[in-house]
Amino acid sequence: MSSTRDIDALIEMMAKLPGLGPRSARRAVLHLIRKRALLLSPLADLMQEVAATARECINCGNIGTSDICDICAAEKRANGELCVVEDVADLWAMERAGGFKGRYHVLGGTLSALDAIGPEDLRIPKLIDRVSSEGITEVILALNATVDGQTTAHYIADQLENRVRLTSLAQGVPIGGELDYLDDGTISAALKARKDI
Amino acid sequence: MSSTRDIDALIEMMAKLPGLGPRSARRAVLHLIRKRALLLSPLADLMQEVAATARECINCGNIGTSDICDICAAEKRANGELCVVEDVADLWAMERAGGFKGRYHVLGGTLSALDAIGPEDLRIPKLIDRVSSEGITEVILALNATVDGQTTAHYIADQLENRVRLTSLAQGVPIGGELDYLDDGTISAALKARKDI
Repeated sequence: MSSTRDIDALIEMMAKLPGLGPRSARRAVLHLIRKRALLLSPLADLMQEVAATARECINCGNIGTSDICDICAAEKRANGELCVVEDVADLWAMERAGGFKGRYHVLGGTLSALDAIGPEDLRIPKLIDRVSSEGITEVILALNATVDGQTTAHYIADQLENRVRLTSLAQGVPIGGELDYLDDGTISAALKARKDI
Repeated sequence: MSSTRDIDALIEMMAKLPGLGPRSARRAVLHLIRKRALLLSPLADLMQEVAATARECINCGNIGTSDICDICAAEKRANGELCVVEDVADLWAMERAGGFKGRYHVLGGTLSALDAIGPEDLRIPKLIDRVSSEGITEVILALNATVDGQTTAHYIADQLENRVRLTSLAQGVPIGGELDYLDDGTISAALKARKDI
């Protein structure tokens, strides 16, 4: 008679994933076990495959399956525009939104005095290198609109001043947003940046 | 240059798990890839192990790693008490709560005229067999307090009437529950079942 300790261990591991807790991990594992031939086994294979092949792009920090990611490898994306994001998730969000045809640079976080994260802990030196070596004409600072994100944007802007065109994402009312549910800062930013119709 | 289609496929599969959606699946997969040696690879191994060993207990329907689950195999749990639950998740919840020393019987759902689920689609015939063959003296109907759960409880009670002691879980105010947030049905059930202090 074998025990159920593998199942318990699987639930425990799943429960540590972001967005899952013990209860949802149990539900997910039960679901997987019920469909083990169809779901659990292929999922395990896929995870093993990704574990073996996934790596960070040595150029931009994106996650892909080769040392140079698909975006950095695509010649036609070398249009002189470089979009700086905090995290791979932000890069993916920009790609899903579409519309940007240049390349990215993933910082891997934000400057933070509290957590003692300085420019060397992020990919800021690499960013400055790339601006020269890749003939970048415009750096779009697509950092989160948080205090740390904006501090980091200011720091990068200081470093690159007069060397390249610097832009940031527009701030305003989100598409589908209701004024009544927006914070005051967003509304006043949207008012300041108002446009003629 | 290889593509990122394995990563996309992994996100898509994870997004189909109960409790996860596309956004949380992306977050979880990024987290797993960042810690691929420590997390993704062991998780994949564990899933493969569980996929190979997990099975339903042929006696009670619990999920374990052998044909007869640990609870059915434990001699000391043959105390004549049989707890009937809808789902393996409910069995696990009862076990976590502790206090029950008998065996379980997992129905695998509830009777439902709407979804055309009859007694033969659940493990009800097997339950009736077990009551005789295992010398059960008390059947505890621990079914959910939903319409379908209670319909199923009534049906089982009809089948087993006069053959065995039939009980159900007490209904009342949950521990830590605030009256103001409880539904009227629960409050009136708790009032009807009030106890002397």
